[in-house]
Parts: sequence; structure tokens; C-alpha cells
Amino acid sequence: MRAGALSPATSDLLGSIGETCLAFLREMDRRPLLSQITGKTFFSFRTAAVNSTRPVNEALFQDGELVARLMTAAKQRRLNADLSTTEITTACYTLAIGFACVVDVINPGDRQTPGTFFEYLIKHLIATTAESEPTERVAVRVGDTTIRLTLDMILAPIEGTTRFHVAIKTSTRERASEFWAHQRILDHAFGEHAYLGMFIGLGETKLDHKRYAVVEICVPDQWRLYQAHIATIHRIYYLDPPHAYMQLNQAKPPLSVQPFGAYFSESPLF
Amino acid sequence: MRAGALSPATSDLLGSIGETCLAFLREMDRRPLLSQITGKTFFSFRTAAVNSTRPVNEALFQDGELVARLMTAAKQRRLNADLSTTEITTACYTLAIGFACVVDVINPGDRQTPGTFFEYLIKHLIATTAESEPTERVAVRVGDTTIRLTLDMILAPIEGTTRFHVAIKTSTRERASEFWAHQRILDHAFGEHAYLGMFIGLGETKLDHKRYAVVEICVPDQWRLYQAHIATIHRIYYLDPPHAYMQLNQAKPPLSVQPFGAYFSESPLF
Repeated sequence: MRAGALSPATSDLLGSIGETCLAFLREMDRRPLLSQITGKTFFSFRTAAVNSTRPVNEALFQDGELVARLMTAAKQRRLNADLSTTEITTACYTLAIGFACVVDVINPGDRQTPGTFFEYLIKHLIATTAESEPTERVAVRVGDTTIRLTLDMILAPIEGTTRFHVAIKTSTRERASEFWAHQRILDHAFGEHAYLGMFIGLGETKLDHKRYAVVEICVPDQWRLYQAHIATIHRIYYLDPPHAYMQLNQAKPPLSVQPFGAYFSESPLF
Repeated sequence: MRAGALSPATSDLLGSIGETCLAFLREMDRRPLLSQITGKTFFSFRTAAVNSTRPVNEALFQDGELVARLMTAAKQRRLNADLSTTEITTACYTLAIGFACVVDVINPGDRQTPGTFFEYLIKHLIATTAESEPTERVAVRVGDTTIRLTLDMILAPIEGTTRFHVAIKTSTRERASEFWAHQRILDHAFGEHAYLGMFIGLGETKLDHKRYAVVEICVPDQWRLYQAHIATIHRIYYLDPPHAYMQLNQAKPPLSVQPFGAYFSESPLF
């Protein structure tokens, strides 16, 4: 990300990676998977050497012009004008899961590369929309010294107004308490409304490789505990939002969980 | 641990596992390792099939009567009377690292089994000393519902007095924020002094398998951040305390980091 999350060159690069990945996957066989998630259908890619990539949500994977339109709109800073919120979610999902499946084929077991790509993609889209270069470090006072806290993304679009703490992970597994803990540090060190916390995830699906069955691993009760007793996370966005987390919109304390595209229509309301 | 952390049968079982592991390791070749930690010397075990187990701190590994004495004293609830604090630390280290090295030989890559064994050992010694059966769950109110938070160990030795929240991990790696986050939940839900937080670890050494070199992976500045801005952890104990964490005894905010044996002399002071 040394070229800068805001750079138009980053739109071009992400767009051509998308094109390459989709072309690569177009040649692969698809394996239908047994979905254990109501209302979602999944497949994966298979090759002679690799039995199955990670699961792909069929309704959200759209090979075609959509990814190119996303990156062109991002480059021209017209995301919101040129794509609907649903199209943004679908295009991002297609690009992120497509790249991850290519890595699953070329370098099985590599989880870091898809995670890094997902982070760059999300940062670029958010930074472009905010027209602000993100950072990753916050200087926090501890006694009479200053310690740097490294986070996925800090956005301070306008000097002197609310800043944003954005955690970006392909999935949370058992690690969700970390971003609530980071938010608690910011709230305690700078006051409760200095940084608004957001989390952006890809999905929480898991493939059982023996039965080729897909489940969603979610811990909604743990999240309610974190939201009630560690800190407040303002918004949670997913490319493929898990049912169990979407239901937290009706829970107490409220947790606002939305498809990622919603960010681009509601973000000015923050 | 279904037999109960307090059961004398658990002392016997841990003692005979220790005896078996030490006998098994006595037949193995030892590989000297390059220590990059001032004042500590390490070796590992090697076999025809396994180049190197995890590193063993030479000064803390005492094959002999010590492990048997530890478990006999635990069974008779005479830990503090029969062993010095240094002997307790050394005996626990020998037993925990010995078991882990046997797993490294028999089932390379298995990290869960040594972690579970370490947890059972520590729970048994602490529960025996407190003469109180530990639990793992706390019911926390969230709005008008109750959610169960699962922790490594909760100890409530005397009804109505301070309870203890004990996190037990062989090493923390990037996961230390979790036990500060759990402590924050308890502080926020029950008041700041309802549960005293403790962490008990084995060590933070890491072996570079190419150079057979041992380093300690520590993030003391992050821990200071957590202690200042998430919650207060009352005590941290290690079987092989890392230098960088021992120095936190002099830091602000203070973090009390001690060899594990110290627990048995200072615990009545809590």
C-alpha cells in the first residue's frame, strides 16, 4: 500500500488483479457444495491438485463487468453515483473471494495473502470515498511516555472532527475481542466519541472438507457481551453478512450489522 | 478435568505422567541451541524423525525427584511447606515442558495437547492451594438476558469475598489482549474489585528452525497500553519469565510479573 490507499493507480491495479483472477477462475471446474445456511447457495473451484477452494456464495459472485465498473467508479470517485449499494457489495465480494480462491489454488494454506488483499481493497474504497489518506498508528499516552498502537486503519477525514477506527479482517474466528479491546483503548485514552469504531469482514463461512458442507461460525452472544461491557462498535459491515450477526440489529445493546455497500450510502450520516 | 481439579487422584495422575515423560526423554539425544536471550541456555530433544522439539531452558529443567515431590506435596496440600518457591517453579516447568517435548516427538505440530496439559497442571496446583474447586463460566447480564462468558478458570475460595479470574496459556503470541478484554467485561459488569485478574504462562520462547536459535517474543509496550487503558491485571506469573516482561515491574502503570512459584508465598496477601 506504499503507493497510497488514495492513489488512482491503486484502482487500476486492483481492477487488473480482478480481471486476471476472474479469467483464471473461468477455466476451472466448479464443485457444488452442501449449504447448511438457509437461503445461501455455495460452490467452490476444483483442480486436479486442489479438491476445493474456500466456499463461494453463488448469489454474490458475479463474473462480468461489475468488478471493472467498481474500480473505474472508485478511480473517478463516483462509487456512490455509479453503483447501487448492492452492486458495491457484490463487486467487492467477487473481487475479494475471487482473489482468495486463486491463492487457494496456487498456494494452498496461505491465509495471509488473501487477508492482505482484502485489507487493501477495503482501505482503497473507504479512503477514496472519504478523500483522505488513512494511517495505521495512534500515539497513546501511558504515564509519562507515548506508545504507538498499530491498528488496521485510522481515518481522520476532517481535522478536529470525529476520527474512525476501522478493523478489517476476512473473518473473525476467535479474535473478535481484539477490536473491541482496541476500541476500549481509544475510548479510555481519548474520550468516548473521539474515534468511532467500525469492523469490516468478508464472511464467516467454514468448509467441512470431508462432507463439502458449508456452515457459518458465529458467536453472537459473545459479541453482545463485548458490545455491552468492553466498548461500543458503531458499525459492522460484511461482504457476505452472516444471519446470526444480522439478527443483532434487533438485539440489546444494538449492534448495527450491514452489507458493506450500505457504508457508502450511510457514511455521510455518521 | 472431569475428576475435579481438587481431587488427590489428579495429583497422582499428573505425577505419573511426569515420570513417564521424563523416562521417555532420558533416552533422547539433546541438541544444544543458540540462545539469543542473555543469561538463559537452551537445548532441545532430537530423534531420527524429529529434528528438534521446542526449546528447553536448561536451568529450569531438572530431571530427578523434584516433579514427584511437587505432586506428592500437592496431594497432601503441603506445597508451600515442602517446596521453596523456586522449587515449585522449576518442578512445574520440568513437568510442563517435558510433556510438551514428548508431544513434539510423538505428534509434531500438535499445540493443543500441551496447552491443555499445562492448563490442567496449573489449575490443580492453584485449586489445591485455595482448597476450592474452580469453575469456567460466569453469568453476565446483558440488557434483560444473561450470557455465559467462558474463561480458563474462575476461583471463588470464600463465599462473598474476592473472586479470581485466571487466564492460563502456554504463550500469549498476539492474543494477550483477550485476557485484558475479559477482565474489562468482569470489571464493567460486576465492579472493579469483584474479580482479581491473573495470567499464568509457560514462556515466550520461539525457535528459529533454520538456525536452531532461541528468541523471546514479547510486546511489553502493548501490555503497558492494555494495563493503562483496558483493565487492570493484578498479577502475571510465568514458569520461564521473559526478561522484557519482568522489567514491567518497574514500569508505569505497574505490572507485577513473577516466577510462578511466587504465587504460593504471596497468594494469602491478595
